[in-house]
Amino acid sequence: MASEFELIDLFQDIGSEFYSQNGIIIPPGDDCAVFQSKKPIITSVDSSVEGVHFPKSIKPSEIAFRSIAIALSDIAAMGCKPIGFSISISSHINNIEWYKDFSEGVKEISKMHQIPLIGGDFTKGQLNINIIVYGEPFEDKILKRSGANEGDIICISTPVGRAKKGLQDLQSGVKNSNYTKAYLRPESKINLGKKISEIATSCIDTSDGLLSDLKHILDSSSVGAEIYLDEIPITQNIDDINAGDDYDLCFTIPENQSNDSFYKIGKITKNKSIKFISEKGYDVEINGYKHF
Amino acid sequence: MASEFELIDLFQDIGSEFYSQNGIIIPPGDDCAVFQSKKPIITSVDSSVEGVHFPKSIKPSEIAFRSIAIALSDIAAMGCKPIGFSISISSHINNIEWYKDFSEGVKEISKMHQIPLIGGDFTKGQLNINIIVYGEPFEDKILKRSGANEGDIICISTPVGRAKKGLQDLQSGVKNSNYTKAYLRPESKINLGKKISEIATSCIDTSDGLLSDLKHILDSSSVGAEIYLDEIPITQNIDDINAGDDYDLCFTIPENQSNDSFYKIGKITKNKSIKFISEKGYDVEINGYKHF
Repeated sequence: MASEFELIDLFQDIGSEFYSQNGIIIPPGDDCAVFQSKKPIITSVDSSVEGVHFPKSIKPSEIAFRSIAIALSDIAAMGCKPIGFSISISSHINNIEWYKDFSEGVKEISKMHQIPLIGGDFTKGQLNINIIVYGEPFEDKILKRSGANEGDIICISTPVGRAKKGLQDLQSGVKNSNYTKAYLRPESKINLGKKISEIATSCIDTSDGLLSDLKHILDSSSVGAEIYLDEIPITQNIDDINAGDDYDLCFTIPENQSNDSFYKIGKITKNKSIKFISEKGYDVEINGYKHF
Repeated sequence: MASEFELIDLFQDIGSEFYSQNGIIIPPGDDCAVFQSKKPIITSVDSSVEGVHFPKSIKPSEIAFRSIAIALSDIAAMGCKPIGFSISISSHINNIEWYKDFSEGVKEISKMHQIPLIGGDFTKGQLNINIIVYGEPFEDKILKRSGANEGDIICISTPVGRAKKGLQDLQSGVKNSNYTKAYLRPESKINLGKKISEIATSCIDTSDGLLSDLKHILDSSSVGAEIYLDEIPITQNIDDINAGDDYDLCFTIPENQSNDSFYKIGKITKNKSIKFISEKGYDVEINGYKHF
């Protein structure tokens, strides 16, 4: 049976070597964490529930890594730099070994992004991980969903449906395919966000499905789009366009800034509808992940 | 059956009239919220789980108010000013009326403290409310748990055990006693924190029980205490000294700054033990709320 103090010990110092470079003034252990930045602070919270957002079979370190990576994806989507994160864990698990393994996943992603754990909460309940992330702009620019203009090119950076295939592989007993990693250990596209932060006019991360996430950009920007279905890199079939969990960035850039490092999958139109274009005869509907 | 969009509509604009005074640059509706402050940012997360932190019988608006008040209490404990909050709700409830009532509690406390809701997440799962609070110092000083010095006076501002009595009243069917309010609608002691922020040497909020919370101050400050049991204002009996959920502030002030607006319940000693002093013959043990 794990005591609260044993748990706090496991997590207390994760990423403490990154406190000073990230402006952390008062680290975990007080009523609040305190940090300082001359720039605007960006923040987001993401909840991952067992049986809903991840299967019961995956390892605690994978649950930790994945939950944090997903939350960091929101920082990437703003073209910003993460500076720290907090974890609120609800759990009925009493086995200290579970938390040790969980803390390994936390340590790994903390090191990967050089960000400290700055606070958190432990409570009893269904396994539910809430990650709060904090960040700031790399320079000045913060990417929003609004800002896409007529004529802008719509881009993504990786094939859609990789995480969906990874989850299918896991569920059929395949433990280490090229795709399971895409599901279990999504790469938070912080570097991609940095790279595009000065040229993109809008950005979102693809968590619910490319089409439904792109629709948020279109709605926020009061524009429409032509989508070149044949240009979208897919994993299994065209339905991957609605597959969730990819955590790529979908963004728009002015046509004259366009280059070949990204997949160009469409163009922003003044007309507020979405028009699908395919010579291969693809037919799709927007049908992203429903949270409720 | 509530759709995610109906839910977002209910919460989207809560406290939007307070965005500009609190430095909110990008409000909810993007991947992250963004705010700006020239001062250090303080932040904390608090999880409230149905059946663990609150009974199933209480109203959604009360769940909302209480969860947020408890989180704000951590801001008060740092002697700081709240500037905004986020809510992550996991729930299996589909009835839109439940969320409407919940949003009323959110609105009420948003207005009371003039702070906007700046972000959040909805997920399916056991009812679990995570509140993330953000704040900044009123002037410059941030109160910590460490900092108590030998000879400092230990103070609280209200009798202990009020919330415990309130929960007992609720459980025995009393709906509106003087105490049910203390449990259902705890007052976040932001003004008290402001008042003492320049004179206190340490501070904590009393969530787990006065004695066990005071012990955090003593441990963080590497000091001990004499506790004058007869001076502690109690609600039912001396065991209230270990009653949780009061969300008062417990703080230390130098003896020469001491005044009569607070209950003086003890004195900081160099010797790192806790010594109980009572002429009434009270005998107590430290026995606060165990989270696990």
